[in-house]
Amino acid sequence: MADIEDVLARIESSKDQTLSELLELLKIPSISSDPSDVAGIAEAASWLQRKLSGMGFEARVVATEGHPLVLAHSLDAESGSGPRLLFYGHYDVQPEGDEDQWSHPPFTPELVEQPDLTRIYARGASDSKSQLWSFIEALRCWREAHGRFPGRITILLEGEEEAGSASLPAFIDAHRGDLACDIAFICDSDMWSPTQPAVTTQLKGLLHEKVTLHSPNPDLHSGYFGAVAANPIRILSELLAALHDHEGRVAIDGFYDNVPEIPADLRQQWQALSRDAHQLASADLRGGIIERGYTPLEAIWGRPTLDLNGITGGNQGPGERSVLPASASARLSFRLVAGQDPAIVRNRFRSFVQARIPEGCRVEFEGGAGSRAVAMSPENPFVQAVARGMEREWSTPAILKGSGGSIPLVEMFNEMLGIDCIVLGFILSSDAIHAPNEHYDTLRLHKGIRSWAHILDEVHTDRS
Amino acid sequence: MADIEDVLARIESSKDQTLSELLELLKIPSISSDPSDVAGIAEAASWLQRKLSGMGFEARVVATEGHPLVLAHSLDAESGSGPRLLFYGHYDVQPEGDEDQWSHPPFTPELVEQPDLTRIYARGASDSKSQLWSFIEALRCWREAHGRFPGRITILLEGEEEAGSASLPAFIDAHRGDLACDIAFICDSDMWSPTQPAVTTQLKGLLHEKVTLHSPNPDLHSGYFGAVAANPIRILSELLAALHDHEGRVAIDGFYDNVPEIPADLRQQWQALSRDAHQLASADLRGGIIERGYTPLEAIWGRPTLDLNGITGGNQGPGERSVLPASASARLSFRLVAGQDPAIVRNRFRSFVQARIPEGCRVEFEGGAGSRAVAMSPENPFVQAVARGMEREWSTPAILKGSGGSIPLVEMFNEMLGIDCIVLGFILSSDAIHAPNEHYDTLRLHKGIRSWAHILDEVHTDRS
Repeated sequence: MADIEDVLARIESSKDQTLSELLELLKIPSISSDPSDVAGIAEAASWLQRKLSGMGFEARVVATEGHPLVLAHSLDAESGSGPRLLFYGHYDVQPEGDEDQWSHPPFTPELVEQPDLTRIYARGASDSKSQLWSFIEALRCWREAHGRFPGRITILLEGEEEAGSASLPAFIDAHRGDLACDIAFICDSDMWSPTQPAVTTQLKGLLHEKVTLHSPNPDLHSGYFGAVAANPIRILSELLAALHDHEGRVAIDGFYDNVPEIPADLRQQWQALSRDAHQLASADLRGGIIERGYTPLEAIWGRPTLDLNGITGGNQGPGERSVLPASASARLSFRLVAGQDPAIVRNRFRSFVQARIPEGCRVEFEGGAGSRAVAMSPENPFVQAVARGMEREWSTPAILKGSGGSIPLVEMFNEMLGIDCIVLGFILSSDAIHAPNEHYDTLRLHKGIRSWAHILDEVHTDRS
Repeated sequence: MADIEDVLARIESSKDQTLSELLELLKIPSISSDPSDVAGIAEAASWLQRKLSGMGFEARVVATEGHPLVLAHSLDAESGSGPRLLFYGHYDVQPEGDEDQWSHPPFTPELVEQPDLTRIYARGASDSKSQLWSFIEALRCWREAHGRFPGRITILLEGEEEAGSASLPAFIDAHRGDLACDIAFICDSDMWSPTQPAVTTQLKGLLHEKVTLHSPNPDLHSGYFGAVAANPIRILSELLAALHDHEGRVAIDGFYDNVPEIPADLRQQWQALSRDAHQLASADLRGGIIERGYTPLEAIWGRPTLDLNGITGGNQGPGERSVLPASASARLSFRLVAGQDPAIVRNRFRSFVQARIPEGCRVEFEGGAGSRAVAMSPENPFVQAVARGMEREWSTPAILKGSGGSIPLVEMFNEMLGIDCIVLGFILSSDAIHAPNEHYDTLRLHKGIRSWAHILDEVHTDRS
């Protein structure tokens, strides 16, 4: 059998190809949240299906009611004797937002040389095309070195992760056999710092809500009626302002029911980490309101929160308009911890709003089902194999961390299929994901692929 | 000299022409608030200049740094022996807003037959193209009947009334001689009811402000940073919610300084009028918050108010986006009463906001100079002549009323030229001005022109 060094040598010798193919993928504007823009999604799915088909996989694009998934299985002749491994990534990206805020075009990747690495600027450079490309390239190099994969491999690439994964439950339900595995690797998470790898063992649940407040009237002249008729912007502002109390706690009745206190030993570890919180240093926290009694890291990883993501009402400019608008709306999202049921949180939020709607006004809610928080035991042998593989590449133990982010898939795999998921990845909070000038770098691309090679080696050694 | 009956006969015989020409004017999309759309403004100005030139006026389009005005003087040979009269109207219109809310196209006027009248649906049908067309047609018919106008006539038609009249001060300053007159008639106001004429003797001042709140960060991922970093939507909501107290009063320190109580006799008249408040009945007031201690009419006509006209921040849809936005903004407007200086109110508002901006965040303000409230004495002989003329046409005394609306020109004429202004018009609050499906009707068009004929007759009789 070939040595891990052979795999690493192949990773080294194909560096240029690895990068140039990633740049091809980054050129495809696979934005998932705008229903009117599906061409980029179709193109990215097709590109990935072609690549995987050339690497020893039987790969296909699976249509859904939303965006398609790419599903690939290693051919029997290509599959080694190890465990059944599933790798998940998502090929869709966030919208570019305000294009004026980009110094680099979002869908024409630009390489910028830095002293130790080359930065890659593009929407999706970090979240998450480089992530899926890392495990795909590691698997390709493993197979080229060993003649086969380290076990039966399934690759699942989603196309609507950034838009709420609405089609995923039906897909999983219809493909239980295709998805059967001993462990799933979800590659869409971040490192602790540029030199410190991490495995995320706690993920928050996520619940989006849109609330639209309607007055009993159409748009009115604010000079004639402003002093006397309902103003949805004013009502909505008061409602949103009431959602938090003066200690930064969510003021919705029962919101903290069944929320466990963060365990003392975990708090101790996390408080130690705070001293070196690169992740937090990448943003200016002045003006932020942190729940009283918690450090920033505890708030992000361990406490349920509520964020306002968007607000719209009345005159959007450019000129002035003396309008009393007929309606105003806000978009918000809850980040949930273990113990919170998204359906119950949604009901409590809606009751909170309903109780504050003045007579004659009307409220309209929109939102998906949301996802629960999930946690992974640090004792799990796959978690331990991953941690050892990471340590081999980075020469330092991987941190077992929490995340403020949410991956609905992890909850679905847990609940629907009983599959454990290990969440890892090489994103940095300074990568500007979901923001203008998103970027990644060639050093992490290379070390990420090498990390996967080491992880595959540890998993293979451990189990077979 | 011809009799008033000759003027009225000409008005009657040219009804069809009057309407068809108004429809021509309504077809022109003369929206003033969007700087990118100036073709409609230019076309409307040119159309009016041509019409006036054919009616015994020397008319010209006067360019400004903003939109042009149309300025017309009666030729010496056409001018009668009466007082110098100035007529003001505005030919610009509000943007159409959400076109989906219109059942009739905004710039393709539609006539809809009703039992007693024909409705004219179009943006500007009521506010204010029918208003300026009414006095123009009355003057044309007067001149055709009498051989000359009832005095030296100046017509001033503005093209940016709906956008804040930014160019008006410089124009007035540069055309003091052109604008000299004994009285100015501002035709942009409303009736008390469909059968009850009114002259507006109190107008509120108006001050627009746009406030943009910036966090110290670019857009961030709300999962990573929502729990800890500043959220401009949350800060802005709390700020807007704090602008009013629980009694519906504006909570800005000093806002009510120098605001006189509404005089007891006026309150008594207005409370009597409330029993028959058609204007108020055209909107559903449920959910509205009226300053405690005042009736709706008192709040609209006599009390200073603050309205939220627009709000924008973060994700505007259609899909979900886990964003913590870099900024959020709100547009608001103050309606001021006598005693309030817009510059002082602006400073107090800005201080109120500045005092509530968290450390590290930044606020940006935009806004024009605003206008003061103005009041006209009921004893003024021109006011009395107008009231008599109105009564002749409508067979009921004109109400001397207040208005929640604002006309910056009135303040400028007062302050800059020492000219008194009489504000009147035939708009109804049910005309949906500034809103979808704005409309007017042929009955008010006809009776409005006849009203002007009677007013000209009273003014002419009174003064010459």
